[in-house]
Formats: sequence, C-alpha cells, structure tokens
Amino acid sequence: MNTAAAFADYRSYPLISALTAVQPLADQVRVSWADGRVSPFHHPWLRDNCPCAQCVYTVTREQVLEIVDVPEDLVPAAVHIDASGCLCIDWQDGHASRFDPGWLRAHAYDDASRAERQAGKPKSRLWDNRLELPVFDYAELKSDPQVLLQWLLALRDTGLTQVRGVPTEPGTLAEVAKLISFIRQTNFGVLFNVQSKADADSNAYTAFNLPLHSDLPTRELQPGLQFLHCLVNDAEGGESIFVDGFAIADALRQEDPAAFRALCEIPVEFRNKDRHSDYRCLAPVIALDSLGQVSEVRMANFLRGPFDASVAQMPVLYGAYRRFIAMTREARFRLVRRLEPGQLWCFDNRRTLHARNAFDPASGARHFQGCYIDRDELLSRILVLQR
Amino acid sequence: MNTAAAFADYRSYPLISALTAVQPLADQVRVSWADGRVSPFHHPWLRDNCPCAQCVYTVTREQVLEIVDVPEDLVPAAVHIDASGCLCIDWQDGHASRFDPGWLRAHAYDDASRAERQAGKPKSRLWDNRLELPVFDYAELKSDPQVLLQWLLALRDTGLTQVRGVPTEPGTLAEVAKLISFIRQTNFGVLFNVQSKADADSNAYTAFNLPLHSDLPTRELQPGLQFLHCLVNDAEGGESIFVDGFAIADALRQEDPAAFRALCEIPVEFRNKDRHSDYRCLAPVIALDSLGQVSEVRMANFLRGPFDASVAQMPVLYGAYRRFIAMTREARFRLVRRLEPGQLWCFDNRRTLHARNAFDPASGARHFQGCYIDRDELLSRILVLQR
Repeated sequence: MNTAAAFADYRSYPLISALTAVQPLADQVRVSWADGRVSPFHHPWLRDNCPCAQCVYTVTREQVLEIVDVPEDLVPAAVHIDASGCLCIDWQDGHASRFDPGWLRAHAYDDASRAERQAGKPKSRLWDNRLELPVFDYAELKSDPQVLLQWLLALRDTGLTQVRGVPTEPGTLAEVAKLISFIRQTNFGVLFNVQSKADADSNAYTAFNLPLHSDLPTRELQPGLQFLHCLVNDAEGGESIFVDGFAIADALRQEDPAAFRALCEIPVEFRNKDRHSDYRCLAPVIALDSLGQVSEVRMANFLRGPFDASVAQMPVLYGAYRRFIAMTREARFRLVRRLEPGQLWCFDNRRTLHARNAFDPASGARHFQGCYIDRDELLSRILVLQR
Repeated sequence: MNTAAAFADYRSYPLISALTAVQPLADQVRVSWADGRVSPFHHPWLRDNCPCAQCVYTVTREQVLEIVDVPEDLVPAAVHIDASGCLCIDWQDGHASRFDPGWLRAHAYDDASRAERQAGKPKSRLWDNRLELPVFDYAELKSDPQVLLQWLLALRDTGLTQVRGVPTEPGTLAEVAKLISFIRQTNFGVLFNVQSKADADSNAYTAFNLPLHSDLPTRELQPGLQFLHCLVNDAEGGESIFVDGFAIADALRQEDPAAFRALCEIPVEFRNKDRHSDYRCLAPVIALDSLGQVSEVRMANFLRGPFDASVAQMPVLYGAYRRFIAMTREARFRLVRRLEPGQLWCFDNRRTLHARNAFDPASGARHFQGCYIDRDELLSRILVLQR
C-alpha cells in the first residue's frame, strides 16, 4: 500500500509507537502499542475507514463506500500485523483492509488518545489592557510565508493584531485580505467605507462614539475576522478601543456565575435594517463550544431588539446584561489606540469587541475601509501553511 | 410623539387592543388591555426601550442609550395612559418615555403574549416522495414581486423548488440569484461549474453517483440556499434526487429516539481539502433550535472524517448513522427528477439533502452551474417584500 496516497486528508502521520499485538473480540479489534497503550476499534469503524482504492476515490481522496453498503454484522475472518507494521483485516465478505499504524494511532479513540488530542488543540490566550499588541509588517507578510503564518496564529489565538506599512490607496485592503482568502460579502458591500455621512444606515457611519460591539451580530454567523484599514485620519477623536470578549466572559463566569449562565442561555434578538434589508438573529450573548469553553461573544447594544424572555427571567437577564456592559467599560480590559494612515486592525470579530470614540468631522477628514473573512477561511489557510 | 418614525424596525404595529389601566409596582409596571390580558413590564425593560429621539438616533433608528447609562434602581415617578392611548412614564431622573400601545402589545412578554408570538412563527411543511413540487416561472419571478415572495416562502417552508424558463447562457444563474441577494462565495468560486473533470477536487466533479448530502457541511455555517442550473443535459443518467432531511429526522425521532439523540449530541467531523484549502467542521448531524425543533441536517458521507467518540458511544453512533443513511435510501422519502436545460433547482441546503445518479459522460455533455445564498439573505428579503 502506498500509504501516503491513501490518506484522505493530505496530512502525514509519523509513527508514534509501533503496533505490537492485535486481539479480535466479538465487536471490536483491540490493538496494543509498543508504549503500552491499548486501543479498541469497533468493526464498523474499521470497515468504514478502509483506505483502499475501492473505498476511497484516489483522485479526490473522498470516500465512495457508505457504511450501509456492508452488512451490519460484518466481522473479520482474520486479523494480523504485517511485516511493515500495518494492521491487516480480512473481512468475512472477502474485502481486505490495511491500516498504517501512524494513521491508526492518530485516530484511536481510547480515552488516553482522545484526551491527548484534546490537550493538543490550540487555546485562546486571554488578554487585558496590558496586551503587547501583535504587530506585523505588510511587506513581510507578502514575502515570507512563515511571518504570514505567525500573523494568522496570532489572529486565531490572541484575536487582535495590527498590520503596518499598508499603502493608503483605497482598495488596497482587498490585496491584504487575499493573503488569507476571498472576502465575505455583506449588504454593506465587499469593502465598506467607514465615513460619517448624512444618510447613515448604521451608527457606524456617523461621527458618534460606538460602544464595544461585534459586527453583524444580526447574522446567524458573525464574520470571523474584521479588517479596518486607515486611509486618512485627520479628525480629532475617533480612537479605537478593544476588549477581549473571552476574557470578560471568563471574568464574569468567575465573578458572577449566574449572570454568566443567563447570557449563555437566554437568547437575545439582534437586528439591522434599512430600506433594502431586514436582518434578525436570535442567539445568546455568549456561546460555548462542546467542551463548555467560550467560543463566541455576540454584542452590539445599538443593534439589539427588545428583550423577549419570561417574566421570571427578565430581571435576571437585565442584571447580567448590565453587568457585562459595565465590564466592557472597565479600564482593566480596554486597549485604546489611535490608528494612523497605512495601519490596519485585523481582529477576531466573534471575540474581540471593538469601539470607537466620537470624532469631530469638522476638525478633519477620517476614512477607514473595512472587510470581513470567516473563521473557516482563516483556519483552512493555517492548516495549508502548516502542511 | 410621531410613533411611526420612532419604531426602530421599520414595521407597523396596529392597535390590537387598547390599554385600559396601568398599575405601578415595586419593580415593574403592570398594564391591562381591553381584551383582558395583563402584561408586566419591568422598569429596566421600559427605560431600555424608550423610543425618544435622545435614546434612539432618528436617522439610523439605532439605540444610543445603553442601559448602564441609567441607575440600576431607576423607577418611575409617575405613570399614566394619555389621551391617544399611549403608556407614559415620567422617570425619577426627569426623563420621560412614551410607548405606543400597538408596539407595546407586540413586545409584551407575559406568557400568553409570548405563546401567541411563538405560534405565529413560520413552520416547516414536511414532505415525502408525494410532494407536489413548487414550480415557478423565471419571467414571472422577475416581473411580479408577489410571485417572487411566493417562491421565497416556498424555499423557507418547503425547502425545495424548481424554476423554469431560465436562459441557458452560462452565468445567467447570477441574475437569478440577484432576485434574492448577493451570492455567498466559497473556495469553489462565486458560480461553480458541475461537470465531470479529470483532476476533480470533489466527487461532485466526477461522473459518480453522489449519495444524499448537504453541500459544505465542512463549514461552520452550511450554505442556506443552493441553486443548480441546468445548461446542458445530454448525458444518460444523472437524475437529481431529493429527500426532506427534516422529515427523515422527524421519522427517526419517532421510530428510534435513541438514534435521533445520538445524531443530535455526538459531533462528527466533516472535512474537505485540496491543494489550496483544508476545511474542517465538527458538528452533530442533526441540529435543534431553542425549542427542540430540527433546524438543520449536516450530512455528506464522502466528506466525513473518522468518527471520534468515546468507546461507549461508538457503537451507538454507528447504529444511528447507519439508520439515518438507510432512511435516505428509502423510496418513501425520495423525489427523483431529471433536470432539463433551462430549469434550475433551488433548495434549502441545510434541510433538503440532494443526490445525483451516476451519469455516462461518453453518452453526451452535462453542464450545470451552481451557487449559494445564506438563509439570512433569504429571510431578510422575505421581510422586506412583506413590508
């Protein structure tokens, strides 16, 4: 078997530990590894994951077998470890499967193997106003894939970065975004211009201060990355403010667990509408992943609809919501910086809340351009650069 | 107060029932309606929803007040119903709020009002192979906003439609999509071509049969609407097959509740990769909304990674997964149709699973174009057309 060609996910699986023994049981095959670990593999799991060219189309590396294509009670006729250390299974219906030990170990689902994989997953680094801002140079991002990767990892794990040395020609942001992927279009366009205007369809397009918020909480999927590129900034005021929404959620969880729970459990409606659109999304302010870790914050007071909760929940929700907003105003969390022409912010819009101080449009021009890219694209780009 | 201008969501709120009495309590104001309903409104809820021009910027209709801007213990100094039937509150800090009774009733959160709103929400109409396919004419969709609205409601509630009379010029699909919104771009492009090709990066681009699946289960947000436009179909085979994933999930829930639960609770990895991308998404096959209704099905066997569940869960997961796939193969659920040039499918990709029979590329040309639009855009367009 040319194992490299058979791996369906373009990864390589180094040999962590050799297979030393294989024991057939009624519903599973139990293998032992040289380092003492024992991993059970149920029969349907093994048959389902057969990497042979009959089961996986070699051009697309996509599976053509569906597990219902084999009998539910299919069992091995014989199992053995071959001379190259692979697990070999001859099935009772005549099919043969052969598993690379590196691949098998990487997908073992005994408790130890699962815990190991879980521990190896990337973790968010929480921050407060003492954050040493990750800053990158545009020319280096363009020329050095390793610097590019460092930027993307900072976006994934810290959620706030600045890029400098970006030309102030309008539209340049599209070139920057392309370093990661295509842009996520919205009703505000592909690139949007942040300028004060008379017929504003969002408070973002006024000279008001904007409280800490995520963009487009009105969409089922909030944009993952937000870019804000400064072209001109001659106006007084308008400083950017950032807080780590995950750090605030974490602090709330410790300081007021009931308030934290309310924001995780009671959905809130966000909405955003103009003459041509009417978006509504009902979701909790804080979302947790399958392990109970905070995975998303959804917040924009100026885009929120009236709370719709039971009479019993309403005072709890208001208490929790007040508390959360009050925390976004605490100096300990707030990073305040003025963005200069040629600089851009790129941050995790589902984590890092952003705000803007009011500015005085009479004091000078102010023109930012912005765009969005989804988290899927960031994570994909990281995996490709890490290959 | 010019109430029409103050409504933040461009809706109108007819008077359902007049306010007849208002009773101030320690933490809330309790109003009575002419039809006998009684609705409590907590003080922070009322202050938060004050529609005056100081609290809501009239140009953007977005709130500028944040509830933390007022004291937590703010209470009314006086409450009354004015001559035009509005609820008026003079707050102890001097602010005054005035609520239109139509608006207030529409946002009341007593149990009866909430149950009424819930009952008024759109519901999915489940279908099987006896579905009378909703078919629309492209010329009518372009010229008649009421027909357009009917199409969009069919997409929302039935999740499968056909449009006929669409020119077979490549790229026409972009014009059709524009009737709803901009297109959601993916790594496969804005419009993608479904044709058999030698260097396929997906089984979709082969002549294989494709089992029933949703597109891009590998993304955190699966595309909401999928379009498939037939330009040329001279090849033998290649019939389209659809099943209502919600109907199958519903049948599974009744016929095998434990299997249903397993598919709701145990996340599965879907992945899709080529030389330039590597997408992964870990999510359950069946997603439920906050009321426990099936809101999404995520399924593409050929894009699924090895199951990673505990040793105890693995046999349960395989049993449930087999059962689900077996149900997608049952004739009772399957609608089979051949798409002809000038026709297009548009369906809810997160509900209606689609499949394709194998076709014989030697027997003739086959060329479809496809694209995606998210559910947010569909629902927004419906709300705008319904104004």
